[in-house]
Amino acid sequence: MTRSALAIDLGGTELRAAVVESTGRVAAFAATPTNAQGGPDAVIAQMEALVATVRAEAPEAEIVGLGVGAPGPLDPEAGVVVDAPTLLGWKNVPLAAILSERLGMMVQLENDANAAALGEWRFGAGRGTQSMVFITVSTGVGGGVIVDGHLLHGRRGLAGEIGHMVVSERPVRCSCGAFGCWEAFASGTALAREANDLVARGDAPALGRIAGAGAVTGKHVAEAARQGDSPALKLLDDEARWLGIGLTNLLHLYSPERLILGGGVGTLLPLMQKTIERTIRERAMSAFRDVPVVAAALGRNAGLVGAASLML
Amino acid sequence: MTRSALAIDLGGTELRAAVVESTGRVAAFAATPTNAQGGPDAVIAQMEALVATVRAEAPEAEIVGLGVGAPGPLDPEAGVVVDAPTLLGWKNVPLAAILSERLGMMVQLENDANAAALGEWRFGAGRGTQSMVFITVSTGVGGGVIVDGHLLHGRRGLAGEIGHMVVSERPVRCSCGAFGCWEAFASGTALAREANDLVARGDAPALGRIAGAGAVTGKHVAEAARQGDSPALKLLDDEARWLGIGLTNLLHLYSPERLILGGGVGTLLPLMQKTIERTIRERAMSAFRDVPVVAAALGRNAGLVGAASLML
Repeated sequence: MTRSALAIDLGGTELRAAVVESTGRVAAFAATPTNAQGGPDAVIAQMEALVATVRAEAPEAEIVGLGVGAPGPLDPEAGVVVDAPTLLGWKNVPLAAILSERLGMMVQLENDANAAALGEWRFGAGRGTQSMVFITVSTGVGGGVIVDGHLLHGRRGLAGEIGHMVVSERPVRCSCGAFGCWEAFASGTALAREANDLVARGDAPALGRIAGAGAVTGKHVAEAARQGDSPALKLLDDEARWLGIGLTNLLHLYSPERLILGGGVGTLLPLMQKTIERTIRERAMSAFRDVPVVAAALGRNAGLVGAASLML
Repeated sequence: MTRSALAIDLGGTELRAAVVESTGRVAAFAATPTNAQGGPDAVIAQMEALVATVRAEAPEAEIVGLGVGAPGPLDPEAGVVVDAPTLLGWKNVPLAAILSERLGMMVQLENDANAAALGEWRFGAGRGTQSMVFITVSTGVGGGVIVDGHLLHGRRGLAGEIGHMVVSERPVRCSCGAFGCWEAFASGTALAREANDLVARGDAPALGRIAGAGAVTGKHVAEAARQGDSPALKLLDDEARWLGIGLTNLLHLYSPERLILGGGVGTLLPLMQKTIERTIRERAMSAFRDVPVVAAALGRNAGLVGAASLML
């Protein structure tokens, strides 16, 4: 018998479940496309089926409870999904109570970015720290914040909306509707927007060839940069500078021991590390300049492992 | 016998001490100009004398210990003042240990802005909340942050350097040496800089008359604004807009239940509240728009009361 917890990661496109041991090891895993149009009842039925699957795969596990990561805004204390924009009908769903009754175990709910931060903190790149910020840079910019050994929740569990701090007066529109947010400059969406503009203007022919007929993505930029293409290198340099500016703010605001970069754009850290670190050295107050920026260690498993850790 | 704590507030110009009861009431108070050029030994002797004075004034107090607020950077756990730029010779002074030995009691050290935040949280405008941000706007912009019932410390106790988040790409130099910090746009120094520029250009004759021969200050701007002078009203409106932008960032980052504005510029809140609240409504994500911005309640006593509360 190994002390373990169940974990569910409720995504807009994929629903994932696992049995996670108290060491952080994933003992069983299963995934299925989320029935996003089916409403809460249909998705909860999917969850029950996935849980049965992973339990059967790890019959020796001593299950102490279930942790669930779900899109915010949600209320972790009440265990309620307040609103999940990518899932039809998910308004004020008391998911923890429903699953607890169906499965006969303790259930804890957490915002997915916070769950990933917990995963990296307890079992990944943040191990051993008391304070760290996990930043996930992909379509948007999100994250989770640990300070003095606590995951920050704040009012309604909404602390750590790090993508939506204003960093510029330029009227660049953000996905949240406001202007000048960090996300509007540093997200994968912003990187792709700049790359497509450059290709459309004919200023990045090699990058255009790599991208082919479709839209240019961050992956294409990375590929061109690795081949030494200078417009692509310049795009990544700008991306890294914007990341450095926002990371400097996070240092001043939370004083973490480590900044942990995840998400699709986060995987490009080796191509951006020098510029990120130079930007921090130039802009941060001296006491903050030596805080390391490191890559997330758990990849897509961070959220599952972190959700499980709520019960472990 | 009333359960009480001693408090010291070590300022660059004034040294203050008090006996504070467990209700937050200041039972005795004394102050003296800080011997800033005398070095730590001289200032510590001043502290001992002030403590003797306030103890004599409140002989019935049952003293449980001493809390000290001092300029950062400092290490609250070790009780060491790392560097106090306005005080000669204050580098790595183990102040808590020295005072503890001299006075024969427990001593706890805290950053002065954090001490003020604690004071407002426990006895002032933040009472009853689990999460709040105290923002002091005067020469600079500083503050202290409570989230989920804890004062944020972070690595080396440096969390909450809220004045030094970048909010603009404009190369406006901040006191910290960097560019584009919130403090560079929203501090009393910034307000006075804009006011002096306006008067020097001859664009604010009424404000110039109020200020007289010397430099224009925030107080002059407030006086002119109260008389309906439109350049002064515009200056305060710009100040309020900058405050609103930074406060929006603080909402997204910490999710407080309340924002508490103190310091000299903070006292002008009634003249700026509408624009601050409009800016937050325009720029914050919807879940954050109803968080109130309120005036600090304890004025200059916040730091003393908060320092005492470390022991109560």
